[in-house]
Amino acid sequence: MLPEIVSPANPRLKRAVKLRESRARRRERRFLIDGAREILRALLSGVVIEEVYRDSAASRAANESLEPLTARLEQERVAVWPVAPPLFRKIAFGDRNESLIALAAEPDRSWRRFEERLPERPLLAVLEGIEKPGNIGAVFRSADAAGVDGVLLAGCGDDFFHPNTIRASLGTVFSVPSVSADAERIHGWLTGREIGIISAICQESRPYTEYDYTGATAIVLGSEADGLTERWRGEPARGAVVPMLGVADSLNISNAAAVFFYEARRQRDSINRAVPGE
Amino acid sequence: MLPEIVSPANPRLKRAVKLRESRARRRERRFLIDGAREILRALLSGVVIEEVYRDSAASRAANESLEPLTARLEQERVAVWPVAPPLFRKIAFGDRNESLIALAAEPDRSWRRFEERLPERPLLAVLEGIEKPGNIGAVFRSADAAGVDGVLLAGCGDDFFHPNTIRASLGTVFSVPSVSADAERIHGWLTGREIGIISAICQESRPYTEYDYTGATAIVLGSEADGLTERWRGEPARGAVVPMLGVADSLNISNAAAVFFYEARRQRDSINRAVPGE
Repeated sequence: MLPEIVSPANPRLKRAVKLRESRARRRERRFLIDGAREILRALLSGVVIEEVYRDSAASRAANESLEPLTARLEQERVAVWPVAPPLFRKIAFGDRNESLIALAAEPDRSWRRFEERLPERPLLAVLEGIEKPGNIGAVFRSADAAGVDGVLLAGCGDDFFHPNTIRASLGTVFSVPSVSADAERIHGWLTGREIGIISAICQESRPYTEYDYTGATAIVLGSEADGLTERWRGEPARGAVVPMLGVADSLNISNAAAVFFYEARRQRDSINRAVPGE
Repeated sequence: MLPEIVSPANPRLKRAVKLRESRARRRERRFLIDGAREILRALLSGVVIEEVYRDSAASRAANESLEPLTARLEQERVAVWPVAPPLFRKIAFGDRNESLIALAAEPDRSWRRFEERLPERPLLAVLEGIEKPGNIGAVFRSADAAGVDGVLLAGCGDDFFHPNTIRASLGTVFSVPSVSADAERIHGWLTGREIGIISAICQESRPYTEYDYTGATAIVLGSEADGLTERWRGEPARGAVVPMLGVADSLNISNAAAVFFYEARRQRDSINRAVPGE
């Protein structure tokens, strides 16, 4: 067993604390993952975990529940460092009560890698100008659930592995293929591949249910406050609205995303079911 | 204009501060509403606003944006009390930066009132054991958007007008008819009226899209952690699952609710469109 980290001057500890800053994450191309579930999902998605910190005061029950993960980490020869509780709190995020934190290397989020992983007739989501990490994470959670094949982020900040993104996504940011780029490049990529663009626009009158999502399709979602930029508002993009029947004038972004994604899923599943019977 | 409240001993102020406690809300049958949008939605839904507190340091721009509401309050002879900033902060909720807070009387949430407001073939939502006020509010927001006719709450706590519920709902808790009761009574009421019960159950294999929501229907949603109690798991209730195609095993409650509600809406709208053409 590795020796417990007990000194605030420990260089491992200092490096981990640093990674709570967005700037350090970008410079080091490393980030932290809080929580066993999220770490496991990262591992299973091929993220390289460099080392792990364990709260040395974690309860026996907590340790037992972590066994499948710690066995896996051992098998992959990942060092798990016990950290004295007051120091562990320094690297822990906010008020989260997790007993494991992993230091991970930024996975390959290149266009090449993104394209390699796409099926032939992909269902994609484009997020534009979503800045709140929790919202981005929540959309990934819905995308994962509904079987969206990839997420493209435009103007959503350059700190993709923010702890709140990971947390709200339940670790699905690691499993759902994604790429970050500027909106123009994403738009060009979609049109070049003749992927149909359906933009969620509040002012549009055509309901989202009237579109066909069974071909290669990208569903474009903007922020509640700012909506989408011009390029998503005219040909070849088509505007779609989730009808608002009450007194409020918008759904939150992850709810709107879930409604769109599952309508696409419903249509695609009907097709899949229909074909064998023909 | 009313004199500014400047003393911490002011009885109005003390009463308002008290209403930040759940127990005081229940005892007084009064609660606070933070924010102009929420206050306006409460007013328009017939909630009796007894008085309003205004941050006397609110910017001129903020005051101008509030004019439609303050005019309306004046017209209804509601007193708007200016409050000195340090005292206003005492009644404000958390870190919210609103410049208006209203003291409201609990509206009539009786069964009788609930029933009066229902259409003939209602689409209803039942929430069981949802304890986080923010989650309850978020489901109301989706319910409002999708045109759900009423929400029935079982075991969701006895503090319906919690500030987080109001906030997450964007004030739609005031406009969407709702009633709180124990699960047995709600179950009996639904079956007595032959309202179809569709329970969101993760373990069920039948997808939610295979059910018909065009008749009188109640969609029953439980908490992510605990799911639904037995009575919602067998006849006459039918189990429905939102298929989970990724690595995570559940949607958050408001996303699952939005997916169910909008599938019901889609089916109902198709029917409505189909009829005139026949």
